[in-house]
Amino acid sequence: MDYSKYFNENQDQIVKGWMEFLRIPSISTDPRYDAECTRCAEWLSAQLSTIGLKSKLLPTSSKPVVYAEYLVDPKAKTVLFYGHYDVQPVDPIELWSSPPFEPRLSDGKIFARGAEDNKGQSWYAISAITALIRSSKLKVNLKMIFEGEEECGSKGLTQSLTGWKDILKADYLMVCDTGMVPSNEATITMGLRGLVGVNVLLYGPKVDTHSGSEGGACPNPAIAASQLVASLHDATGRIAVDGYYDEVKEISAADRKLANEVEQSSAEYEESVGAPPVWGEKGFTVAERTGFRPTIEVNGLHSGYGGPGGKTIIPAMSEIKITSRLVGGQTPEKCLALLEKHLEKFKPNGVRMELKDRSVGGAALLVSSSSAAVVMAKEALLRASEKVVRYSWEGGSIPVLVKLSEVSGASPVLVGFASLEGRAHSPDENFPLKSFQRGFVYVAEFLSAL
Amino acid sequence: MDYSKYFNENQDQIVKGWMEFLRIPSISTDPRYDAECTRCAEWLSAQLSTIGLKSKLLPTSSKPVVYAEYLVDPKAKTVLFYGHYDVQPVDPIELWSSPPFEPRLSDGKIFARGAEDNKGQSWYAISAITALIRSSKLKVNLKMIFEGEEECGSKGLTQSLTGWKDILKADYLMVCDTGMVPSNEATITMGLRGLVGVNVLLYGPKVDTHSGSEGGACPNPAIAASQLVASLHDATGRIAVDGYYDEVKEISAADRKLANEVEQSSAEYEESVGAPPVWGEKGFTVAERTGFRPTIEVNGLHSGYGGPGGKTIIPAMSEIKITSRLVGGQTPEKCLALLEKHLEKFKPNGVRMELKDRSVGGAALLVSSSSAAVVMAKEALLRASEKVVRYSWEGGSIPVLVKLSEVSGASPVLVGFASLEGRAHSPDENFPLKSFQRGFVYVAEFLSAL
Repeated sequence: MDYSKYFNENQDQIVKGWMEFLRIPSISTDPRYDAECTRCAEWLSAQLSTIGLKSKLLPTSSKPVVYAEYLVDPKAKTVLFYGHYDVQPVDPIELWSSPPFEPRLSDGKIFARGAEDNKGQSWYAISAITALIRSSKLKVNLKMIFEGEEECGSKGLTQSLTGWKDILKADYLMVCDTGMVPSNEATITMGLRGLVGVNVLLYGPKVDTHSGSEGGACPNPAIAASQLVASLHDATGRIAVDGYYDEVKEISAADRKLANEVEQSSAEYEESVGAPPVWGEKGFTVAERTGFRPTIEVNGLHSGYGGPGGKTIIPAMSEIKITSRLVGGQTPEKCLALLEKHLEKFKPNGVRMELKDRSVGGAALLVSSSSAAVVMAKEALLRASEKVVRYSWEGGSIPVLVKLSEVSGASPVLVGFASLEGRAHSPDENFPLKSFQRGFVYVAEFLSAL
Repeated sequence: MDYSKYFNENQDQIVKGWMEFLRIPSISTDPRYDAECTRCAEWLSAQLSTIGLKSKLLPTSSKPVVYAEYLVDPKAKTVLFYGHYDVQPVDPIELWSSPPFEPRLSDGKIFARGAEDNKGQSWYAISAITALIRSSKLKVNLKMIFEGEEECGSKGLTQSLTGWKDILKADYLMVCDTGMVPSNEATITMGLRGLVGVNVLLYGPKVDTHSGSEGGACPNPAIAASQLVASLHDATGRIAVDGYYDEVKEISAADRKLANEVEQSSAEYEESVGAPPVWGEKGFTVAERTGFRPTIEVNGLHSGYGGPGGKTIIPAMSEIKITSRLVGGQTPEKCLALLEKHLEKFKPNGVRMELKDRSVGGAALLVSSSSAAVVMAKEALLRASEKVVRYSWEGGSIPVLVKLSEVSGASPVLVGFASLEGRAHSPDENFPLKSFQRGFVYVAEFLSAL
């Protein structure tokens, strides 16, 4: 069957559904959008029912999970598809060219929050499955699971997973939530980093106070926050938290070779990202630093006056939002404890510290290149007319995947068509129709061959 | 004449005018309030005309200055009174117990932005002058000048000063914009610190970008800002900017003794400010650190996500609002240049830096204890039934005073009744009626004796 032809003939209908999906502002990290998240889960479940899956919402301690299945033959292989229906927040909203939840087709791309991550990539998979069911080509047992908290720590799904061991049992864990190498060639993701995080509050004077009267005596939480953040790395860019590298796996020569096949030049990186790739540890390439080495990043730092002009105050407090990406070998709980110990030790004198929103995401995921699922994915991509297949160790995280793979017993296969230009997590997130179509054809080729 | 009795008999009328003054939101640092600043200047000028002064607005390159005079005798001494009609911004607005521009009398205090700094202290002076004129007790030539940019660098007045040399000529420069020692005993301010400032913008990726995909390669402006701020001080709390102490005058034994007469205990300080007085240089008392030693403070630091929960981004930029208090001997322009040189030198690799809103306030002011004006102020305070008179070197700044004193040829005399509990620059700024009355009686005693 020519899946490209099918896509072209059904494109209007497919894009219409995708846009409906994008219009629901399912921001998981902000409690004001809780009802929209539930509405999104209900909408998605109804869609899956419409195309012929048995679908329902599974309640969790937090946001509901959409679970759908299409079981054809107990002797056939079973694929567990994982995706997420939640999206990142939208600020800074003023930098969007159009409203983030009013999807717009422009220049061959759909612009919206979630256009790519992960509603776009989920929707091409659902659309491909629709095509296979309609043409009676789906000969594999299919289970689909969509969580609503991928962007904020996967709390509900993680807590429920062990209890769902029986229903989640599968051979392959199929995920379309990753990206391509910078050349935008088809890419199988071999690794994802783990994630932990904590928010740090530092308190100084009772209220924002006069920087003249008290300056030189009163602790300044903005300066204290800076000193604390500065203590996290040494002068060479290496993480300075005691013991943080103890469990890190060394990079094998084979992995190093595959990862560096697609290394961008510094100029190319700067052109696409807007800044030169000069951070991180010395002695590693960009692909190695983002794929195989841990990071500690500050995602937000706020203290004191931020309006026009100036205000001569010592701020009453500061907030530092910290997350850390973990790599193969590192234990999330242990790393977060080391980080917290460091914060306690280096907290400047005179300010009071509070650690909150402690988040232990998943460990890193490492896929073996000899895995049958990876070999089949490569073959499906070549059948889908991709010219070349690359292997990538991504810097991002899908925290729940390690646990999902363990509980389901399924072998992970991660192929996605996101690109840097797609601006996931940023203003003007978008996903080209061409990339959507490549994803659609890949999923159809992969599933129809099982 | 019994000025306390006069005050008690006219209190309602006096407070009514003060409240009118406070209702005008004359925030000078925020251009959205420009029209309110002009309205405030016009209102103040009209009030001064009403009590018998010849008053007008003097245009400057920026906000207008109110100038009023009452000339009785060319052979009499001339007093130049300086005040300001602008106020600080009001955020964090949510911490105010009542709207900042709806003055409220509660517990014997007026609560409003500017209640103390400087509308309250200006208004007791104007009220005392009203009393003297009405009772024919004003035998001195009086000039009054109120600027509208004290809280944001005094640009307009500073640029105009030289051109106004003739009209500003005076013997004494009277200022009621200072505070009392923590015991709230009457205080003559012998020193004020100078002020310079600059806003630092650091740019990383084009847009807030994915902290997973790019983390470990892409520069992080929040971390870069932290490292830059951390470089401003050494581990002992001393400023680490090369050459910053070169011009600092040593503290004389006599000044040190007077300044330390009123030193609070650490516990008292923490009780009133909310944090222990442990910052600044080792080897100096709190009074010495705030009165005689320079500081570099961060008044605001903002980068990346600040909403609920988390967002896994590398922020596109960060902003650091820096001001520095200068002390006797230091040249503002030279200090700002040293600071900027330091920022250029310590800017982390990979981020682009922009310095803006460069502000060169005044140098520090140091008054001689043998000055005739200081001696007369002490006598006036004792006649006003103050039990004791203290001498203080304040940490705050009135940037334009050094220049005003030079141009007018007038000898400064700084007495004010602000207290720490008055929360100048903070939410719930307030000024007790009792303090207002003490100021009123002092001004009347001082001027009537000339």
